Amino acid sequence: MTLPRIAITMGDPAGVGPELCLRLLSEPGILDLCTPVVFGDARILEQCTAATGLPAPRRSMSEREWTEGKESLREPVVLNLPAFDRAGFQPGKVSAATGAAAFHYVEKSIVAALAGEIAAVTTAPLNKEAMHAAGIDFPGHTEIFASRTHAQRACMFQYSAEVRASFVTVHVGYSEVPGLLTVERIVDVIELTADACRRLRGPRPKLAVLGLNPHAGEHGLFGGREEGRIIIPAIELARSFGIDVEGPLPPDTAFIPAKRRAIDAFVCMYHDQGHIPLKALAFDSAVNTTLGLPIVRTSVDHGTACDIAWQGRANPGSLFEAVRMAVRLAS
Amino acid sequence: MTLPRIAITMGDPAGVGPELCLRLLSEPGILDLCTPVVFGDARILEQCTAATGLPAPRRSMSEREWTEGKESLREPVVLNLPAFDRAGFQPGKVSAATGAAAFHYVEKSIVAALAGEIAAVTTAPLNKEAMHAAGIDFPGHTEIFASRTHAQRACMFQYSAEVRASFVTVHVGYSEVPGLLTVERIVDVIELTADACRRLRGPRPKLAVLGLNPHAGEHGLFGGREEGRIIIPAIELARSFGIDVEGPLPPDTAFIPAKRRAIDAFVCMYHDQGHIPLKALAFDSAVNTTLGLPIVRTSVDHGTACDIAWQGRANPGSLFEAVRMAVRLAS
Repeated sequence: MTLPRIAITMGDPAGVGPELCLRLLSEPGILDLCTPVVFGDARILEQCTAATGLPAPRRSMSEREWTEGKESLREPVVLNLPAFDRAGFQPGKVSAATGAAAFHYVEKSIVAALAGEIAAVTTAPLNKEAMHAAGIDFPGHTEIFASRTHAQRACMFQYSAEVRASFVTVHVGYSEVPGLLTVERIVDVIELTADACRRLRGPRPKLAVLGLNPHAGEHGLFGGREEGRIIIPAIELARSFGIDVEGPLPPDTAFIPAKRRAIDAFVCMYHDQGHIPLKALAFDSAVNTTLGLPIVRTSVDHGTACDIAWQGRANPGSLFEAVRMAVRLAS
Repeated sequence: MTLPRIAITMGDPAGVGPELCLRLLSEPGILDLCTPVVFGDARILEQCTAATGLPAPRRSMSEREWTEGKESLREPVVLNLPAFDRAGFQPGKVSAATGAAAFHYVEKSIVAALAGEIAAVTTAPLNKEAMHAAGIDFPGHTEIFASRTHAQRACMFQYSAEVRASFVTVHVGYSEVPGLLTVERIVDVIELTADACRRLRGPRPKLAVLGLNPHAGEHGLFGGREEGRIIIPAIELARSFGIDVEGPLPPDTAFIPAKRRAIDAFVCMYHDQGHIPLKALAFDSAVNTTLGLPIVRTSVDHGTACDIAWQGRANPGSLFEAVRMAVRLAS
């Protein structure tokens, strides 16, 4: 049996991505599940090996070698994408150059996934400000993947043992959220979440949709009645499609222990509504995936962590979980 | 030594308030700390005793008896406020009549506290919709106490062993929050929170203020730059007053375990930003207090729970904790 090839993008060279990739390439539990292909920079990984004492990658290949040899590939490898001028590079210091390089690895992985050369992509963290400094205006990975794969209705989904959440809006300002809520968008996210939960958790998942306002508006007492105007009609439409979904729940009591155990996934209206409980309850163990793409994409649930980067101390648990989920979603 | 007299308002008669008051009046650990005075309805409490088998109150007194005898009071008592027409009353069914009664107990307790007849008020849950049905337009206890005591800068503060949070805004719609954030209001809440933490946790509390936008705006990438325009100036002003306060923190990572242990209290911009982690981490054990009042007021951190009301099953832990904190804050 051939193991699936999973692309792992190296992330921002100045962050914890390189050392996490070094750990991954020599992790027996991962190599039993898949053939990892790190989309990154072989020289950066060598430099990171020297800095941290972590094992050097056993093999790297150029894009030309990849094009010719990928079909027979059975061992972990670095696909060397030396798009990065290392003049001035300092571990722990992100810059326009490191931001552009991180973006390049992601773009290459998407092209490879769309071509069927790899089964899924798992992304190590990039730094948005570095990327913006390089003139690349995406607010995050989710939006890059949605744009480059021409996905019509992608959404972020965060998965942990403790709690799972998908998002109607993500990287937008607090004030912009109400204007982005539509019945169609919420139904899309409910459907994508139900589909992912069927693959990950069994045939008839139970979903819950959160309200926007405190106490879910308490029957119209608070807020602009977004619950009655938009969220309830979306829930009713999703139910008519056969999805087991309740709500709108008061956001504050949605994540109490008994409710977390009963619900396969919570559909959240905005970033912090779901990320606050996720990080409070499952810090460092959640996996981020983008649903609704023509390809499978998962990600670590942490940032570049430049304060501890290149010291060999970063915890690879989230990256390993993200690769495991990529394998499950791709199978 | 005379124990402090603490008013406990009975809450909505149809909810779990009456049975919690019955438990409190016979709880040795509470009676060692204070003399509880239940502001409620003696006939409802008798009816609740009959329904649940919980011990009947040993003594009740009328308002006239209270006026004459309160100074020498040394035993737990019900101050009987029969403002409530029980025609049509059904346990578990809130109504305009129960909402009006619950509001009446609160109003009476505030008058007694302002007159110095009691040392503090602890409130059992009322139901906002019932109160609104009675034509009383306060969104919650916090606002009733602020209005009736003419407090200039009150704020909600939630206290638990796991995490503590104060609130710049509370019971307003999601969309209204950005327009309510001002440097002055945020500084007021920081000062009130620091003062409460000094009384509850020691002389030099560490506070943290949360951002409004995802990732606290990520240096202006998301949102209306509320962090730079309003929140950061407020933090700097509070620091100039000698308060140890950091921020604005990205809201999602504010509540990770290491941060929760390091911070005495989090200053939150809106209801769900703080209530989601509070309920996820400390469900049923948090105590709600209103800071900035001329009187001490604490409250349970749960609602009327009509689905289990009048069955004797409601957990009195939050009410007992709220009374203990009232005693500490009043001393």
